[in-house]
Amino acid sequence: MTDLPARDQLATHEVLNQPAPEGDRDLWAGDAALREAIAREGGQSETLAPYGATLGRAEMRAAGREANDHAPELVLFDRAGRRLDEVRFHPSYHRFMQTSVAAGYAAVAWEEAPGGHVTHAAQVYLASQVEPGHCCPLTMTYAATPALRAAPKIAEAWAPKLTSRRYDPAMAPVGAKQGATLGMAMTEKQGGSDVRANTTNATRDGDHYRLRGHKWFCSAPMSDGFLTLAQAPEGLTCFLVPRWLEGERNSVQIQRLKAKLGNHSNASSEIEYQDTLAFRIGDEGRGVRTIIEMVHHTRLDTAMAPAGLMRGALSEALHWVRHRAAFQRRLIDQPLMRAVLADLALDVEAALILGLRTARAFDGSTPEDRAFARIAVALAKFHSNKRAPVVTYEAMEALGGMGYVEDTPLPLFYREAPLNGIWEGSGNVICLDILRTLAKEPLAAETLRAELTAATGSDPRYDAALKAHEARWPALPPEAEARWFVERLALLLQASLLIRHAPAAVADAFTATRLAGEAGRITGAMAGSDVSAILDRLG
Amino acid sequence: MTDLPARDQLATHEVLNQPAPEGDRDLWAGDAALREAIAREGGQSETLAPYGATLGRAEMRAAGREANDHAPELVLFDRAGRRLDEVRFHPSYHRFMQTSVAAGYAAVAWEEAPGGHVTHAAQVYLASQVEPGHCCPLTMTYAATPALRAAPKIAEAWAPKLTSRRYDPAMAPVGAKQGATLGMAMTEKQGGSDVRANTTNATRDGDHYRLRGHKWFCSAPMSDGFLTLAQAPEGLTCFLVPRWLEGERNSVQIQRLKAKLGNHSNASSEIEYQDTLAFRIGDEGRGVRTIIEMVHHTRLDTAMAPAGLMRGALSEALHWVRHRAAFQRRLIDQPLMRAVLADLALDVEAALILGLRTARAFDGSTPEDRAFARIAVALAKFHSNKRAPVVTYEAMEALGGMGYVEDTPLPLFYREAPLNGIWEGSGNVICLDILRTLAKEPLAAETLRAELTAATGSDPRYDAALKAHEARWPALPPEAEARWFVERLALLLQASLLIRHAPAAVADAFTATRLAGEAGRITGAMAGSDVSAILDRLG
Repeated sequence: MTDLPARDQLATHEVLNQPAPEGDRDLWAGDAALREAIAREGGQSETLAPYGATLGRAEMRAAGREANDHAPELVLFDRAGRRLDEVRFHPSYHRFMQTSVAAGYAAVAWEEAPGGHVTHAAQVYLASQVEPGHCCPLTMTYAATPALRAAPKIAEAWAPKLTSRRYDPAMAPVGAKQGATLGMAMTEKQGGSDVRANTTNATRDGDHYRLRGHKWFCSAPMSDGFLTLAQAPEGLTCFLVPRWLEGERNSVQIQRLKAKLGNHSNASSEIEYQDTLAFRIGDEGRGVRTIIEMVHHTRLDTAMAPAGLMRGALSEALHWVRHRAAFQRRLIDQPLMRAVLADLALDVEAALILGLRTARAFDGSTPEDRAFARIAVALAKFHSNKRAPVVTYEAMEALGGMGYVEDTPLPLFYREAPLNGIWEGSGNVICLDILRTLAKEPLAAETLRAELTAATGSDPRYDAALKAHEARWPALPPEAEARWFVERLALLLQASLLIRHAPAAVADAFTATRLAGEAGRITGAMAGSDVSAILDRLG
Repeated sequence: MTDLPARDQLATHEVLNQPAPEGDRDLWAGDAALREAIAREGGQSETLAPYGATLGRAEMRAAGREANDHAPELVLFDRAGRRLDEVRFHPSYHRFMQTSVAAGYAAVAWEEAPGGHVTHAAQVYLASQVEPGHCCPLTMTYAATPALRAAPKIAEAWAPKLTSRRYDPAMAPVGAKQGATLGMAMTEKQGGSDVRANTTNATRDGDHYRLRGHKWFCSAPMSDGFLTLAQAPEGLTCFLVPRWLEGERNSVQIQRLKAKLGNHSNASSEIEYQDTLAFRIGDEGRGVRTIIEMVHHTRLDTAMAPAGLMRGALSEALHWVRHRAAFQRRLIDQPLMRAVLADLALDVEAALILGLRTARAFDGSTPEDRAFARIAVALAKFHSNKRAPVVTYEAMEALGGMGYVEDTPLPLFYREAPLNGIWEGSGNVICLDILRTLAKEPLAAETLRAELTAATGSDPRYDAALKAHEARWPALPPEAEARWFVERLALLLQASLLIRHAPAAVADAFTATRLAGEAGRITGAMAGSDVSAILDRLG
């Protein structure tokens, strides 16, 4: 009856108007905004090009689904009933760990070549488009290196393993491994973000300490060690808890794995320390100061990951609308669908460009760089994560009922979307942190202001919005207004970057809809933008 | 060491600052906005009060979780290898079906007593707070009754069973049952919303027809029959496909259950018709006209359900913040948290009040009522569902990392949130439908305008926003602007209701933030509202 392949000709009907599987998708070559930003901010395109091409292969995208469909399993005891406290992962998970470690996900930022943090941040963006779960252990491994500097002898043993490009999942002492990963265990049941409420106790035992207590969220319990906080005699202190001592397991007892909304490929857990051996990192009583160096770096990743999730979801929607027709028109040719997709593209590029500009500040070494990194990473983390649930939901809706079915990757992106906004400080915590930073670090406010004023003089709507912000808040706002104040700052910063660096169509549409009020609150509730130019840029 | 219960005193720590389980929650008595709206719109409070009290019991909330944790199973064959095509549900699912059928979920709108649609809509709102999945078959059963009127003889046999208050899950001919449910099977692989692209074929067989084809989304395949569309000689036609004939199963073959993002307690499926017996409903070639009567009514439920999901999520967040402290302050006393929760409360009340006002138009019988119902249900469906993912996500974030874990109900609400926006016409389809309605039905535009102008003269910001809308769109907008146009109309309509009927604090804050631009796009990005009054109203 037709020349369809046999598997499209069923007994009762033919399978028509369903897009063919997409095949390989080059996440580097197909992403003009990424390539331009990497060139501008000084990232290593020679590293990113093959990584993006590999991750986007159809086979890897399928492996990413597998790693999430077959969630890790907790094995508490061996067959004889001895404690084991291990987590078993699907081979596809290990494959992603192997690929990303080899690409330098946790290493490149600490190597000699310039642009390491920008390169790393771009890797977060790329990996999040395919298999976001394995980013968790690698992000923590990346971020632990600077925190370990507070304990030079420990850093000497561990840092080369954390920045190795060899993935070694063996359960063995770190000295015997070719590469290692580090996790983090900060949060307790009663405290949450309020780590000063921690009750885990640390008592001295020779050169080291013994910990007794629990951690309510221990991410990546199969890591070779954890940075953790406990109350030592002089106050809250940072420790490294190795999973394995010379010759035996350290007593880190996993209670259960968290049944998370998403992030299924990754194991998150609750653990108990029962007189567990720990190495002190930094001085007693300086625990927050020490671990904040790690948190500062994980925040970069939590600011970057939503850009990847949003881009991944948008790419799926694009493939669908380009190959699906309804009411005698391809979906991509329908004006309202075009408005929605263009609006999503603005969110993606704004999040991407802000994340990579922020990463460049991490690469810098001046006081200005450090101050800007501190304020920018918080703005980016807050704002990009607020957009992620909305953007992934709208991308899902572009597929109609199909998007709600787990056969497509849209549910994965949508389930993952809230994660990075909650981890490492949820929205309110971040907003209040931004107020504190602006109040206490004049250089952060100055460098932010310099970045904002750098874009003035070319779009009167932007200039007016900047002036309105300063008029609305001549001083810092009261706590209750922190979200509004921060949202506007983040949008101004994104607009400042887009005006200077993005195609005119993108910058114009962003300024019109996000700053000048020529739009509603809902995605696609806008008019008059050069939608074709925005969509063409998506590859 | 303390006087905590033994199970809070663990070997390594005590469980502190974790809210106790909430216990019973009266969904009627605790919801002032609902009770006021029911009184105003003429619903049956004597039906709703016990239903809301029952559903909110801790035991029923736990059963709701169970019904979703133990998803239905498809049983294609019996043990001898004969086709069975049945779906097995958890007892908790049946318990909800039993409870809601007995409360008249599918019946009350078609009974003598006034206010039936308002009462039904409130039941959707209540049920969605606890176990949204079982609403699907009951919503379709509610909505099928008016469509069946196009076939009086069939209606005579079926309608009494559909409006029975006895739940009877037996697999038996409808004549032998005490109550029955109806599903819907419209969508095909190639068509989606574009049902005119359907290929399922109907050929005459005596008094009836035989169908051959497939349906890509067949909701609730254990229903006693389905309304479906197929191409008859005279064109697309509506049919009733019974699951069971006298003495044998009808040949409805289930291919698989959909692996949905959420809505896990409910079975959705793909089916094939292989010369399946069907009864014609309405004339040949009038299929869309016939089934649209059903779709019109399911849309009321899809407009109402998000209000319930949002309210359910908000209630969970409220319990948490009232019993959890961080940084030496209860969360509910933290100004930024209060701003976020108040903003969520505005979304909930606006969606609730618009849904119930719309339901009153369904109860009415004048041409004005019908015209207003048509436009209002589309506005409500579009807008309330756009808010649901955002609101459920923000409620989740109020719990921090806890909210991301399936031990709390927040993931369920968040996973459910996109559903009603996609079912029965996704966002763009609805927006374009609204433009068509306004273009072709002057009475719809007139009644909407009357509702909007009824609120003028009391808040200058509202009056200005209404005027601005008319100035911005003196005629209908081009398709590309439909979302913006519709969003503003929906907000105006919600504000019009709140100004007239809600406490001043609620109406003021809504108008300021949604219409007058005194807010950002992000939840809680606002200032200056009477947050305490808004929160106190939540019970």
